[in-house]
Amino acid sequence: MPGKTILASTIAKPFVEQLKSSIESNHLTPKLVGFLANTDAAAEKYAEWTAKTCAETGVTFELRQVDKTVLEDEIIVANQDPKVHGILVYYPVFGDRQDQYLQNVVSPKKDVEGLCHLYCYNMYHNIRFLDDQLTQKCIIPCTPLAIIKVLEHVGVYNRVLAYGNRLHGRTITVINRSEVVGRPLAALLANDGAKVYSVDIHNVLEFHRGEGIKLKKHEVCETSLAMEDVVSRSDVVITGVPTPSYKLPTKLLKDGVIAINFSTFKNFEEDIKERASIYVPSVGKVTVAMLQRNLLRLYDYLQQGQQT
Amino acid sequence: MPGKTILASTIAKPFVEQLKSSIESNHLTPKLVGFLANTDAAAEKYAEWTAKTCAETGVTFELRQVDKTVLEDEIIVANQDPKVHGILVYYPVFGDRQDQYLQNVVSPKKDVEGLCHLYCYNMYHNIRFLDDQLTQKCIIPCTPLAIIKVLEHVGVYNRVLAYGNRLHGRTITVINRSEVVGRPLAALLANDGAKVYSVDIHNVLEFHRGEGIKLKKHEVCETSLAMEDVVSRSDVVITGVPTPSYKLPTKLLKDGVIAINFSTFKNFEEDIKERASIYVPSVGKVTVAMLQRNLLRLYDYLQQGQQT
Repeated sequence: MPGKTILASTIAKPFVEQLKSSIESNHLTPKLVGFLANTDAAAEKYAEWTAKTCAETGVTFELRQVDKTVLEDEIIVANQDPKVHGILVYYPVFGDRQDQYLQNVVSPKKDVEGLCHLYCYNMYHNIRFLDDQLTQKCIIPCTPLAIIKVLEHVGVYNRVLAYGNRLHGRTITVINRSEVVGRPLAALLANDGAKVYSVDIHNVLEFHRGEGIKLKKHEVCETSLAMEDVVSRSDVVITGVPTPSYKLPTKLLKDGVIAINFSTFKNFEEDIKERASIYVPSVGKVTVAMLQRNLLRLYDYLQQGQQT
Repeated sequence: MPGKTILASTIAKPFVEQLKSSIESNHLTPKLVGFLANTDAAAEKYAEWTAKTCAETGVTFELRQVDKTVLEDEIIVANQDPKVHGILVYYPVFGDRQDQYLQNVVSPKKDVEGLCHLYCYNMYHNIRFLDDQLTQKCIIPCTPLAIIKVLEHVGVYNRVLAYGNRLHGRTITVINRSEVVGRPLAALLANDGAKVYSVDIHNVLEFHRGEGIKLKKHEVCETSLAMEDVVSRSDVVITGVPTPSYKLPTKLLKDGVIAINFSTFKNFEEDIKERASIYVPSVGKVTVAMLQRNLLRLYDYLQQGQQT
């Protein structure tokens, strides 16, 4: 009686269909530009997936292969081009810091990845709308957003609770604290009410909104806990360790755990389904769907801006 | 007949005196807040130096030692406090990416380090003023700015040429391409008209404004040159390699070269002055003076903002 595997394609499907139908029925003409300035195999694969999903939904996708020395100028050209509604850069280009600089060169009006400072800051501070009238939702980084959609799909979000608090009572471990996925994800889940253990090679931090989720946004506390301690008490364990050799021992997990892996490598052991109730081996296809969902949102905001 | 050593303290002195005199005679009350959230020895030393120089010039300096889990909230408190005119964070706190996020949490109105995206973007794009009336100069990151002041002091900037082009004709090598010092420095020098070779462990890039400095801002070109090739043809060689074992061989340098080291380790060999006309072994004290120069500039902008 093993647990159930749920594939990213299954989770992505309704989103892709909804995107397609929305584009068709409203005669939308969103255009996404992707910049590829490296020869990273994972980036090229991500570009292929983007093209494929865009073809399915009806988004015009243009892949621009540019030299990295002119990438910044090319982003600025796309920022200023009214025919372009979304901009995506396939990282890594230079490496950490200069890439993070580039993330802020992309205009927030076209930042489908949600990586510019405005969106990151709002996300960490649990600010969900761009405007005071609460009409324009903030853009959430694609992979953390995809994982939230996975958690909604597998029933971790409790719809009986109020929007914004639907993870209250859940304990979730995230093994990865990168600035692109792990840390924003831990913050998002804690902002939605979960108690989150954020694990990296140095330590375990706890992200939470306090007893009775009384805080408006999460706080971060240092703990003296080890990964083994927190994994065993977690309802959901989410892994993103970027090394092929890393395997989280199944025996550490709570029986009936929900196991989600967003690393390109399999971070759970072969026998994971003997312990897990639900296993999601990857999230990439949901990420690409979220990219387009962000694009349609920005397309809508751009249209609204032109009308006023 | 060895070359001349010029100490950072000598270069910093007129700046420190000018800051002091300006604060005294105009009855200015600038307050700088420094956040120390680590136990890094270099950061602690930098904090000590800041305190010492502030005491000399008359800047009120408050060092706030905070836990890194609350640093972001504390920065936001200081952003909103009208009694605080400048904010400085002693990095590293978390490591690259999260630290870069924090750099953007500091308000541009109080960013004495010049590390937020607005100032970095303007610097790379050779945008020198914040306003269309050209009254408010942009803030330049402290260490690159300090090195420019060193270059002015030692006569590399040619005052006969127009402001903005005073390095035309100079060839400068910068060995370090970090996002905090090496890359911005290469861009600044190229924007001022120099041909700059930017060296890191991967390659050598050339930053320049083109033949006859015809471009408005620098462009970056890949080269197939090696460090040895570019060092030998450089009028100025600036090193910032953060390892004690690294020594740039003196024999590679052009006779009469100007040698400047901004690493905390000595990157030039003991015999450097047998080849160099001028040797500047460190720049830290100039950096601290520039920090306060930036503070006074922001103080002035804040006062202007209150008057309008």
